[in-house]
Amino acid sequence: MQQTLAILTFDTEGTGLYEITEDITRWLRETQVRVGILTVFCQHTSAGLLITENASPAVPRDLLRWLGAAAPEGDRYEHSAEGPDDMPAHIKASLLGPALSLPVSGGRLALGTWQGIYVWEHRRRGSAREVALHVGA
Amino acid sequence: MQQTLAILTFDTEGTGLYEITEDITRWLRETQVRVGILTVFCQHTSAGLLITENASPAVPRDLLRWLGAAAPEGDRYEHSAEGPDDMPAHIKASLLGPALSLPVSGGRLALGTWQGIYVWEHRRRGSAREVALHVGA
Amino acid sequence: MQQTLAILTFDTEGTGLYEITEDITRWLRETQVRVGILTVFCQHTSAGLLITENASPAVPRDLLRWLGAAAPEGDRYEHSAEGPDDMPAHIKASLLGPALSLPVSGGRLALGTWQGIYVWEHRRRGSAREVALHVGA
Repeated sequence: MQQTLAILTFDTEGTGLYEITEDITRWLRETQVRVGILTVFCQHTSAGLLITENASPAVPRDLLRWLGAAAPEGDRYEHSAEGPDDMPAHIKASLLGPALSLPVSGGRLALGTWQGIYVWEHRRRGSAREVALHVGA
Repeated sequence: MQQTLAILTFDTEGTGLYEITEDITRWLRETQVRVGILTVFCQHTSAGLLITENASPAVPRDLLRWLGAAAPEGDRYEHSAEGPDDMPAHIKASLLGPALSLPVSGGRLALGTWQGIYVWEHRRRGSAREVALHVGA
Repeated sequence: MQQTLAILTFDTEGTGLYEITEDITRWLRETQVRVGILTVFCQHTSAGLLITENASPAVPRDLLRWLGAAAPEGDRYEHSAEGPDDMPAHIKASLLGPALSLPVSGGRLALGTWQGIYVWEHRRRGSAREVALHVGA
């Protein structure tokens, strides 16, 4: 299999969704792969990957509010030494998962019209988040 | 890598789980791949993929009810222009994810005895849902 | 593509997270793959796979409590013939998903510093859980 590997780093500035579709698209173009499989893997346990609609900016805001209410901060957690937002961040990252696999066709990601790829930062403070990319052809 | 790509379209008729295991199995058979990796990718942000038990028809019904209660319709969402079921659909699709990767062994999907693959439609009205398939060997 | 397939069996002893990072790492080493893609697939609908922090033992305990509260046992489920913990187990397995894909680089899994791979058993009683592994290079 023809393979290319890379790690891209994204600096997040606090809780939120950061679209990385263009970064991945640019990297993929440089590999010159026409048909293959792209694997995206987030190397963190308090941030993760998401594919959702990238047309309306209200969608990420609603997602943030929904997930914040589903796994709220508070004194209910045993694991609290790293701050009140740490254990909720692990729950959120567990629910959404760290990995995505996408076909590549005609040199492009096989995303639907409205799909964008996001890093979802779950911690209050930002961080440098490393995302491993692999394409095989 | 030997590769085959396709897009299958499934017409959903409203919110619910639609089993597509047989469709994928038939497509895989035509590729004549004996050992490899199958990637399944749903190109939508208000429908997704799921693997769950395909023996008891009550299981999909309970899943529907549970997820409907977890992300209910209502006036809590900022993104409401596309109807009251749209933002809940994005939440549900985000939780379940658009992608699945499965080994192929002996020409068959490496599914467990009780596992079936489903398209989960989250919108009230049905739609033509496109699922990209890639097998590499 | 150079490929190796295996099924590893893990005996779980009731609801909980069982780390399998070392088992997978050992298997990967034997394949002698330096660069490639690892796919891990759990062949069950009431257990699944998870990547989360493997430093603090309180993290898996908080995850267990959170998920137990999100999909509690009770008389709300139509599918109850296999015990009160069965339908909650299907919900949990659906949320977390059965599949993971990870790049392999330099003969090692591209995991982050704090990431461990777990089998998450959702049934009260333990079981022999089969996890399919595939590496392609």
